[in-house]
Amino acid sequence: MQVYEISGLDCYMDITVAIDAMGGDHGPHVTVPAALAYLRRNPEVNIVLVGLQDVIESELQAHKAAIGPRLRIHAASEVVTMDDPPALALRNKKDSSMRVAINLVKSGEANACVSAGNTGALMAISRFVLKMLPNIERPAIASILPTLNGHTHVLDLGANVDCTPNHLLQFAIMGAMLVSAVEHKPSPTVGLLNIGAEDIKGNEVVKQTAELLRRSHLNFYGNVEGDDIYKGTTDVVVCDGFVGNVALKTSEGLAQMISTMLKQEFKRNIFTKLAGLVALPVLNRFKSRVDHRRYNGASLLGLRGIVLKSHGSADTVAFENAIERAVEEVRNGVLRRISEQMSLLSEGAA
Amino acid sequence: MQVYEISGLDCYMDITVAIDAMGGDHGPHVTVPAALAYLRRNPEVNIVLVGLQDVIESELQAHKAAIGPRLRIHAASEVVTMDDPPALALRNKKDSSMRVAINLVKSGEANACVSAGNTGALMAISRFVLKMLPNIERPAIASILPTLNGHTHVLDLGANVDCTPNHLLQFAIMGAMLVSAVEHKPSPTVGLLNIGAEDIKGNEVVKQTAELLRRSHLNFYGNVEGDDIYKGTTDVVVCDGFVGNVALKTSEGLAQMISTMLKQEFKRNIFTKLAGLVALPVLNRFKSRVDHRRYNGASLLGLRGIVLKSHGSADTVAFENAIERAVEEVRNGVLRRISEQMSLLSEGAA
Repeated sequence: MQVYEISGLDCYMDITVAIDAMGGDHGPHVTVPAALAYLRRNPEVNIVLVGLQDVIESELQAHKAAIGPRLRIHAASEVVTMDDPPALALRNKKDSSMRVAINLVKSGEANACVSAGNTGALMAISRFVLKMLPNIERPAIASILPTLNGHTHVLDLGANVDCTPNHLLQFAIMGAMLVSAVEHKPSPTVGLLNIGAEDIKGNEVVKQTAELLRRSHLNFYGNVEGDDIYKGTTDVVVCDGFVGNVALKTSEGLAQMISTMLKQEFKRNIFTKLAGLVALPVLNRFKSRVDHRRYNGASLLGLRGIVLKSHGSADTVAFENAIERAVEEVRNGVLRRISEQMSLLSEGAA
Repeated sequence: MQVYEISGLDCYMDITVAIDAMGGDHGPHVTVPAALAYLRRNPEVNIVLVGLQDVIESELQAHKAAIGPRLRIHAASEVVTMDDPPALALRNKKDSSMRVAINLVKSGEANACVSAGNTGALMAISRFVLKMLPNIERPAIASILPTLNGHTHVLDLGANVDCTPNHLLQFAIMGAMLVSAVEHKPSPTVGLLNIGAEDIKGNEVVKQTAELLRRSHLNFYGNVEGDDIYKGTTDVVVCDGFVGNVALKTSEGLAQMISTMLKQEFKRNIFTKLAGLVALPVLNRFKSRVDHRRYNGASLLGLRGIVLKSHGSADTVAFENAIERAVEEVRNGVLRRISEQMSLLSEGAA
């Protein structure tokens, strides 16, 4: 019996990650080689590939790999598709690779789960199977975005469309504990996403949240605006899931537009193509700095278990990064830190 | 007496724009040369420069220009600063260049007003002086953003932090009428900014707004996501001012970060600098495609008069574009179109 019944909290020495091998746009074509590449680089980690046994086996064969003491297959007969409504995936696909991978976290056979599948289903099933941490009302999705001076963590990115100030306070605590754990920052700064720096700005929920954050023991920076995300003004940016999702998707759209336009301009004629060739090493260096694959892996926070959501379109490199994030969260005791802070908060309130 | 008492609705043949010459980070150093440049190119327009007489005169002299039949000065003794709280600017600075410029629209001496000053003050004063159009409860800020295939109009960008479905419906009508007027599109497509394409996505306000939009006579495309803004999926994107402001500022931050990183990479060493020199014409072409100056000029919609807000940091080119937008809105009867649609709507409801 673990403190707070947090699944897979102990056994840091021997970390096991359950991978929903069928999830994502490319399924085992990405998840299996990513797992193999990760294992080659990380001899201390074990991986369980969850999904259709024969499909996973043939993918392993294609990579001249086989199961062994650190890599095993856990069969699951069903697959949650990207179009499955979360409620249906939860109710009707009890032997899906996604659900079985989460079950392994619940039972303690794995310390974390990584899936590139349907976000809504992953959230619904994780919440149902793992349950919430004490005193946390809502789970949140936290992701990393690049900034001028490094990166920042933003949450919630879409789990909650309507939030109360208390929900946002809890998100702030979870985000701060995530950053303090995986980045070894004792007191990460927290910004509240708003439409102006002044206290009088924003809607009622945001104003009340600022009040709660000021009274909390978090390192509250104050209100931040959309551009502060990419300026890297704070270590953590807190917002409700509607706003966070719009900010994230808008960023994806803008980055895609800029990338497409740059390509169009360099492909315009023979001279611009030559210029592109000359500039290629520089452009590649730039690209690697903003490469979204490096930031792949969103944390589903607030659950009694570590669950990482990879982008559905992730390639092998990106999916490997999501596995790495899961391992880092286990290794640095993210769940324990969140739990401790939440008990401090509830003791303070009591 | 004009229909609906819309100030400056008539006299399209002889358009007069009142410019808050003192507004913005650079005041007359930008507004005066922008006005002069605009007049050179547009012989059919009259401009009234509103502000401190001597300051404007000396700026005119610096450009070897003088007042004349198409360019005059209207003295105003006060200036609204960027830090003035809107309520104080409204109450205490009754002879500010901003207020006097808006007064000229109210009195019919000008057909539109352009200001690069304090957005909150501009909104508060415009609303107080000009009043709202019939059946419109809230003004909205609409701006143009570049897309892969042209551009799109997004509103609200920050005037309203809490919106009802009816407010959002009114924004949709105003946005659609703006686009139909200035872009001569008979039935522009309207997208509702949400966190998923499916009907079940989003918060209650958004779901109810979708229902109103489906029942309206607008060309409602359905839900759009953040990335659809830059894909140019619809002609108009509707959202509340909190979400819109975050999307806009996040975009500004990301664009700024990408631009800075590109510059950093090209300035890294002598080889990258040479590559940058070779790539310069291509990079400049790219830059001009996403040049925010081309999109300068946000419309304050819903008022009984045309008011354009220029970015505070606008340069001459950017400010000229804001003047051009004001003239286009007058020329194409934006206010009349919005009023007509709103009466249709209220007749339909009655």
